Amino acid sequence: MKVQLVENVLKANDEVASLNRRLLNEAGIFALDIIGAPGCGKTAMIEAATQMLQPELRVGIIVGDLATQRDADRMAKWCEQVIQINTGKGCHLEAHHVRQALERMDLTKIDVLFIENVGNLICPVGFDLGQDVKIGMFSVSGGDDKAAKHPFVVCESAVLLLSKTDLLQYIPFDMQLFRDDVKRLNPNVDIIGISVPTGQGMDKWVHWIKAKRSLRFSRAEAASL
Amino acid sequence: MKVQLVENVLKANDEVASLNRRLLNEAGIFALDIIGAPGCGKTAMIEAATQMLQPELRVGIIVGDLATQRDADRMAKWCEQVIQINTGKGCHLEAHHVRQALERMDLTKIDVLFIENVGNLICPVGFDLGQDVKIGMFSVSGGDDKAAKHPFVVCESAVLLLSKTDLLQYIPFDMQLFRDDVKRLNPNVDIIGISVPTGQGMDKWVHWIKAKRSLRFSRAEAASL
Repeated sequence: MKVQLVENVLKANDEVASLNRRLLNEAGIFALDIIGAPGCGKTAMIEAATQMLQPELRVGIIVGDLATQRDADRMAKWCEQVIQINTGKGCHLEAHHVRQALERMDLTKIDVLFIENVGNLICPVGFDLGQDVKIGMFSVSGGDDKAAKHPFVVCESAVLLLSKTDLLQYIPFDMQLFRDDVKRLNPNVDIIGISVPTGQGMDKWVHWIKAKRSLRFSRAEAASL
Repeated sequence: MKVQLVENVLKANDEVASLNRRLLNEAGIFALDIIGAPGCGKTAMIEAATQMLQPELRVGIIVGDLATQRDADRMAKWCEQVIQINTGKGCHLEAHHVRQALERMDLTKIDVLFIENVGNLICPVGFDLGQDVKIGMFSVSGGDDKAAKHPFVVCESAVLLLSKTDLLQYIPFDMQLFRDDVKRLNPNVDIIGISVPTGQGMDKWVHWIKAKRSLRFSRAEAASL
């Protein structure tokens, strides 16, 4: 009975996610679901990437947290279209949250949509939001064992971000161990190391977003010919 | 229907938690449920505290992770009674996990039990395991806004740990903001800053455990007279 209910919840979620996906695709929006532990630097990364992507690409942001409006307030400095979702005790975003946010945004003015999921490396992985890609994010300060301990996010990610590389000089972190764990779980996924304060790796990450978006929509155009 | 099911799951959990609590109390074991984000340093803290508590108090450890035996392997160096629980996709420990672990431990040889919950600041808060206290753990590297964003763990904790204080010199962290957020959510909870590499604050934390255990069981003895 519990399994049945979980399946029903996921099925209902998937239906809304499909609607979101169609809406986003029709608007030419490349959507990234950013998944990481609390404090791994999701908000700081999105702030920095937004400034680098604009004005060439117009950015929208949906941000999930249990409580507070703080992330949206931070991001509103860099981006006109920011929606904060407070989930209360909810440990992940679901497709209907994204649906409600999309209804409040002007989709004709967005090229790239960051969906900052609730800080949690586990529960958000299983919920399709209608995104193009899920992006798992780890931090150097979180320790070199975190990929092995969170295999599902590693397996589901189109690319992995490893943040706070500026702290590598102050704390022990076995990069080879981290890379080996990732490789074992998902041989096809790249790891991009980034540091927001120094800017290290951010060019590579922003290039990745642009290239994937371009590929995504050139394919869509080719298919519609 | 969903709400009803969640209530049933929690009710079943509470019944097992009560059995755990009786078992632990009868054995004179003070049990701490440690809740924090992945990478906040739960394992490192438990390793250090275990070495400081022993041999005066004998320590047992139950450690939860989605996958891997790594934490138990680390802790087995310092402690004879360590049980690793792999939850698969489960984002928190439940009382029956602890029950199964307790059945494999020699409770006559334990005075303090650390239960390291799955790395997650959200879902573990709602599940009673039969512990004496829940302890929320934040890290300096996770950012000064994390108490405000995770109000439930702040409200449910007997004391809060703020780890990695040695990194305060390298990263921005507004201590007053963090303290004010905590105070607003839970005026009665203390914050103990700790650093495992430098040892800062660990004496205070270990003293807290000893004092609470002593108080807990002197009360129990008084009640049984």
